[in-house]
Amino acid sequence: MRLATVSHADRTTAAVLIDDVWRALPATDLSAFLAAQGVARAAGLAGAALDGAVPVLPLPAPAKVICCGLNYADHIRETGRELPSFPTLFAKYADTLTGPADDVVLPPGLQVDWEAELAVVVGATLRHADPDTARAGIAGYTVANDISVRDWQYRTLQWFQGKAWDGSCPVGPVVVTPDEIDPAAGLDVVCRVNGEEVQRDSTRTLVFDSAQLLAYISTFTVLRPGDLVLTGTPGGVGTAREPQRFLADGDVVETAIAGIGALRNTVRLKG
Amino acid sequence: MRLATVSHADRTTAAVLIDDVWRALPATDLSAFLAAQGVARAAGLAGAALDGAVPVLPLPAPAKVICCGLNYADHIRETGRELPSFPTLFAKYADTLTGPADDVVLPPGLQVDWEAELAVVVGATLRHADPDTARAGIAGYTVANDISVRDWQYRTLQWFQGKAWDGSCPVGPVVVTPDEIDPAAGLDVVCRVNGEEVQRDSTRTLVFDSAQLLAYISTFTVLRPGDLVLTGTPGGVGTAREPQRFLADGDVVETAIAGIGALRNTVRLKG
Repeated sequence: MRLATVSHADRTTAAVLIDDVWRALPATDLSAFLAAQGVARAAGLAGAALDGAVPVLPLPAPAKVICCGLNYADHIRETGRELPSFPTLFAKYADTLTGPADDVVLPPGLQVDWEAELAVVVGATLRHADPDTARAGIAGYTVANDISVRDWQYRTLQWFQGKAWDGSCPVGPVVVTPDEIDPAAGLDVVCRVNGEEVQRDSTRTLVFDSAQLLAYISTFTVLRPGDLVLTGTPGGVGTAREPQRFLADGDVVETAIAGIGALRNTVRLKG
Repeated sequence: MRLATVSHADRTTAAVLIDDVWRALPATDLSAFLAAQGVARAAGLAGAALDGAVPVLPLPAPAKVICCGLNYADHIRETGRELPSFPTLFAKYADTLTGPADDVVLPPGLQVDWEAELAVVVGATLRHADPDTARAGIAGYTVANDISVRDWQYRTLQWFQGKAWDGSCPVGPVVVTPDEIDPAAGLDVVCRVNGEEVQRDSTRTLVFDSAQLLAYISTFTVLRPGDLVLTGTPGGVGTAREPQRFLADGDVVETAIAGIGALRNTVRLKG
C-alpha cells in the first residue's frame, strides 16, 4: 500500500493509492491520519478519488525526527572509522523537512552536501520495544535526503547545527507499507546531482536495520505514530571526495529508492 | 514578573504571580499562553487568585529544546578543551522535560550526572535575528538541570542519545521576565546533591550569552514563543571528577538560580 499527503483542490489531505488512483483518507495529512487511525485502517477508509492529486511532504508535523549517522559499511570506511557497536544518533525538527519536489533554499556560501537515506515512518507508540515489537510498529518507508551544511556540522563536536537548517531535508513522495518492500532484502538507494550518479548502495548493507534502530531509540524516548527515523547514508557524499564537492545554486538533486519513488529538489542558494 | 504553569483544582493553568498570589491566565499552560498572547499581556490578563496553586513544568510542549554545551569557561577547562569560537548545540524534546519537583526516573545501571543550567524561554518568533532582536524576543528565564546519561552520551560521537531520555530534564519552577533579572550581570547557578554543593558559578562567565545563542540558532532554524534554549552548565559535573561520581537511587538534586528559584528532584533508578 502507498500512502501520502497530497495537494488537491488547494488543500492537503491524507491519501491512499488504489489501482493507481489517489483516494482521500479522513485527515488533513498523513501525520494526522497515522495518529488518529493507524495504517491498518487506510484501505477501509479510502474515500473519493482525487484527480490531479500531487504528493507533498508526507509527514508535515512529526514530533521527532531522529537520524542515524554512519550506518552503511562503505560510508563508514570513507570517513575513516571502524564499524560501530552502537548507532550514532542526532535530531532534526519538523521545520527541517520539505516536500519531495520543493526547492531547498539555503543562504549562499555554505558547504551544502547530499545524503540519500531510507526513512522509517513509525506507526505505533513504541517504548522499551524489542526489535520484533519495533518491526511490527513500522508504518512504512519513504525517501529522504539529509542535506547537510558541512561547515556548520563540523564547527563543533556536535553535528546538530549542520543538520537542522529549516527546509533542508526533502522527504517523500510516498510511504510504502512493509508488506510491499523489505529493506533487509535490499533496496537500492541512489542519489544523482544534475543527472550524475553520486551515491548508490543497497539497504541490505545497513549496519543497524530499521527495527533495531526503533528498538534502540525506544530505550530512551517514546516514538509515536508519524515520527520519522532516518537510517543513514551510503558512501559518496561530497565532503568525502577528493577534491571535495558541494552543491551549487541551481543544482538538481534526485534521491531514489527502489520500490518507493524519487525526490527531485533544486538547490537555491540565496540570501 | 513571575510566570508559571500551576496545578490547581486538579488541572493546570498558566498563571502570573501578583503580590505573592498566583492569578490565572487564560490558557491551560504557559506554552499555550506565550503562543497565543505573549508575555507583555500577562499582567493585564491576570484573573482569579488560585489558592494553593503549585508550579509544575512551566513549558510542557516546546517544539524545540536546544541546548548549548561547553559555555562556562571553567567547565570547558575541566573537559580539557579550548574556549570555543562557536556554540556547541544539541537537541532535546518536550518528552525530555519534567517538572520542578518531579522524580527523575531512569533505569538502573546508568551513569547519571547533573548539569545545572540557566534556560531561556523564547517569547517571539525569531528568524535570522540579530542579537538585539533576539534579546527583545526573550520571554524570560528559568532553571533547568540537563541530567545526562554519560555512558550513552559517549557511546558515539553524538551526545544526543545521552541527553534525550524521557523525563530526565527538570525545568522550572517559574519563568522570570528580563526586566527583573539580567544574566549578563551575574546570577549564581548552584547544584546540590543531598545538600552538598557540587556546582556553583555565575552566568556572568557564560561564553555565549542568551541573546547571542538565540541569534545564532535563528540563523538556521526559526524559534517560536515557548521554545527553550539551555545555556550550558558550569564546572563540577560528576563525570569530570576524580574519582567520577554519578547519581544513585534516592539522591536528591537541587538546582537553584538566584532571582528565579530552585528545582528539587529525587532520582529514582528502577527497571
